Amino acid sequence: MLVSVNQTGLWRASVAHGFPPSTASAPTDEDYIRLALELAASAKGEVSPNPLVGALIVKDGRIVGRGVHRYAEVKHAEVLALEEAGELAQGATLYTNLEPCCHHGRTPPCTDAIIRAGIARVVASMIDPNPQVRGRGFEALRRAGIRVDVGIAEAEAQQLNEKFVRYITSGRPFVHVKIAMSLDGRIATATGHSRWITSEASRQAVHALRHEYDAILVGIGTVLADDPELTDRSARSRHRPLVRVVLDSRLRIPLTSKLVRTARQWPLWIFTTEPLGERAQRLIECGASVIPVPARAGRVDVSAVLEELGRREITSLLVEGGAEVHATFLQHGLADKLTVFIAPKIIGGRRAIPAIGGEDIPTLDRALSVRIVNVARSGDDVEITAYPIT
Amino acid sequence: MLVSVNQTGLWRASVAHGFPPSTASAPTDEDYIRLALELAASAKGEVSPNPLVGALIVKDGRIVGRGVHRYAEVKHAEVLALEEAGELAQGATLYTNLEPCCHHGRTPPCTDAIIRAGIARVVASMIDPNPQVRGRGFEALRRAGIRVDVGIAEAEAQQLNEKFVRYITSGRPFVHVKIAMSLDGRIATATGHSRWITSEASRQAVHALRHEYDAILVGIGTVLADDPELTDRSARSRHRPLVRVVLDSRLRIPLTSKLVRTARQWPLWIFTTEPLGERAQRLIECGASVIPVPARAGRVDVSAVLEELGRREITSLLVEGGAEVHATFLQHGLADKLTVFIAPKIIGGRRAIPAIGGEDIPTLDRALSVRIVNVARSGDDVEITAYPIT
Repeated sequence: MLVSVNQTGLWRASVAHGFPPSTASAPTDEDYIRLALELAASAKGEVSPNPLVGALIVKDGRIVGRGVHRYAEVKHAEVLALEEAGELAQGATLYTNLEPCCHHGRTPPCTDAIIRAGIARVVASMIDPNPQVRGRGFEALRRAGIRVDVGIAEAEAQQLNEKFVRYITSGRPFVHVKIAMSLDGRIATATGHSRWITSEASRQAVHALRHEYDAILVGIGTVLADDPELTDRSARSRHRPLVRVVLDSRLRIPLTSKLVRTARQWPLWIFTTEPLGERAQRLIECGASVIPVPARAGRVDVSAVLEELGRREITSLLVEGGAEVHATFLQHGLADKLTVFIAPKIIGGRRAIPAIGGEDIPTLDRALSVRIVNVARSGDDVEITAYPIT
Repeated sequence: MLVSVNQTGLWRASVAHGFPPSTASAPTDEDYIRLALELAASAKGEVSPNPLVGALIVKDGRIVGRGVHRYAEVKHAEVLALEEAGELAQGATLYTNLEPCCHHGRTPPCTDAIIRAGIARVVASMIDPNPQVRGRGFEALRRAGIRVDVGIAEAEAQQLNEKFVRYITSGRPFVHVKIAMSLDGRIATATGHSRWITSEASRQAVHALRHEYDAILVGIGTVLADDPELTDRSARSRHRPLVRVVLDSRLRIPLTSKLVRTARQWPLWIFTTEPLGERAQRLIECGASVIPVPARAGRVDVSAVLEELGRREITSLLVEGGAEVHATFLQHGLADKLTVFIAPKIIGGRRAIPAIGGEDIPTLDRALSVRIVNVARSGDDVEITAYPIT
């Protein structure tokens, strides 16, 4: 039986991640929930469009089963944990970061499996915001006589699944704007030179970020200036390829660009306001998708883009420039999160490209407020994470 | 005798500041030097144009004397410590952050007093860069048979007296550029609206900064846009009033500005490239000093300004805007230090005022590199401290 080995390994891993060792006393519900959160997080990049879920089954103070959902493996975390626990699930407690499902999707309802296995108590961090579940999972468990406790480490659980929550409740992807700028807030010189402002460490951090997202978006200006590849070079496995999205109202993307030349390897979706003609045809022949959307003030309407991405099951989108694209998302209230890498460099100048362009505001009360949740060093740079206050 | 009371209080204060309590064993040289540095730092704002100096005398493991230099009290830290120690100085060790002086200034040489008191050993952090001392103090002590150890906590000591070091070695003030900007690197909207970008906590931190400086400098643009008072509202004592300096090539400063109206209370020095005429006369009648300097590219030559400030014994200068003034100091290699307060706000826009203006650079290799030495929260803001790499 592998249970004790698994258990030891799990505890050791958690301690290595700063998990507070539970001195002499027995682990608490919160300790187990944090392990479930760690398990869930280990599948980042492998669950979309599903949520990140980890589950533990604890019987008489021992972990007897654990599970992590990965989209490709189909089975949900709760079911994997129940399978590992086997007979030991009888009378045990199940810990999970998300409410177990109660509907038929790719799998039968997890609630049925939990009830059938004889679980006595379920401890969960948060309700599943999926309109098909939203409390009905807990309800089914309670109706079956199972004790249900909800809300432990809820804030962490909400953050872990912030992409899923945004997508499942709005049908639009979670939008994360990433900016790499100098200490004086510039993303390029006046001539458009931008490689590289930030350090190697920050560029690696960006690949780790890309790994967590379904799609990455840039404006045509960035394509023309930088000819980027926009790939996930995190070297971690992902079950869906990263979709590269370009906003290109007048279809100016060169057929010789790296994006177009790699369109058969990795998806390339070009949003345009042009009627689809010969130019679009050429791009499609290269392997790209060309998607017409309405214009708004002469540009691609990003709200329509987000809706179309949602329809295509893109749950999360990383926006990587340039200044006008950043502004479009931020000023229209369409950005859910913001990460700014600040390099120890000063570019200065009256015409160097600012981090965020767009329309000017007359007074400071019209500025967009954000809540800074993390400030850290990233190599020689500073990394600031914030959420716009809506 | 007050010695033990002083000693206890001193240790307690140091522990409260995160000083590592020296477990069971006796305090080390480094422990005592850190106390000397704390004593020195307690006189910030009260020593210019002299350096910050603290001294401790330790005999048989007990602190028997201590001293802090304050300009108004004339006496040097070493002499004050010797006076407190009295007879106990015989055979004791003197700890100080800076080399004792060996020349006649406002006071006789400290080295003479140390030798006369029978001090057996001197432990110091750094050499005095003053060309009149520069090692000769240590030499005199060694010649008298005193053991001298130099270099403990030298980096901290150098930083504590960075203003004095710059001034005494170059004749120019230490220049610290302070910027308060939004997360996207703007110091005002396109219409010049800038009050307030940063939080109350950061604005208080700025007053604490002003307290450490002899003078504060802004461009005429900032005066016209904000009508600032530029006073030290730290509520801490300072022995010289904060000098307000304005770069005003064409003497546009309004007689009705707060600066001019308070020119009899606090010094106001206006640097101009205009010949002194009627306008200057009016300003002088209001209590301001009007100082003509050469022009450089149609503006006040800041290098000439720094030399004139140095001649007037201004050892340190805080530069507080606007964008063009920041750029002038930074791009000409005249800034010694940079503090950026970053507010959780996004201003955006194509014409909003950037933190640093000036000439555009073509490529990133021409950017000014800085070394970020501290990143901290300041209320809701982030405070970044950096030194330009020259």
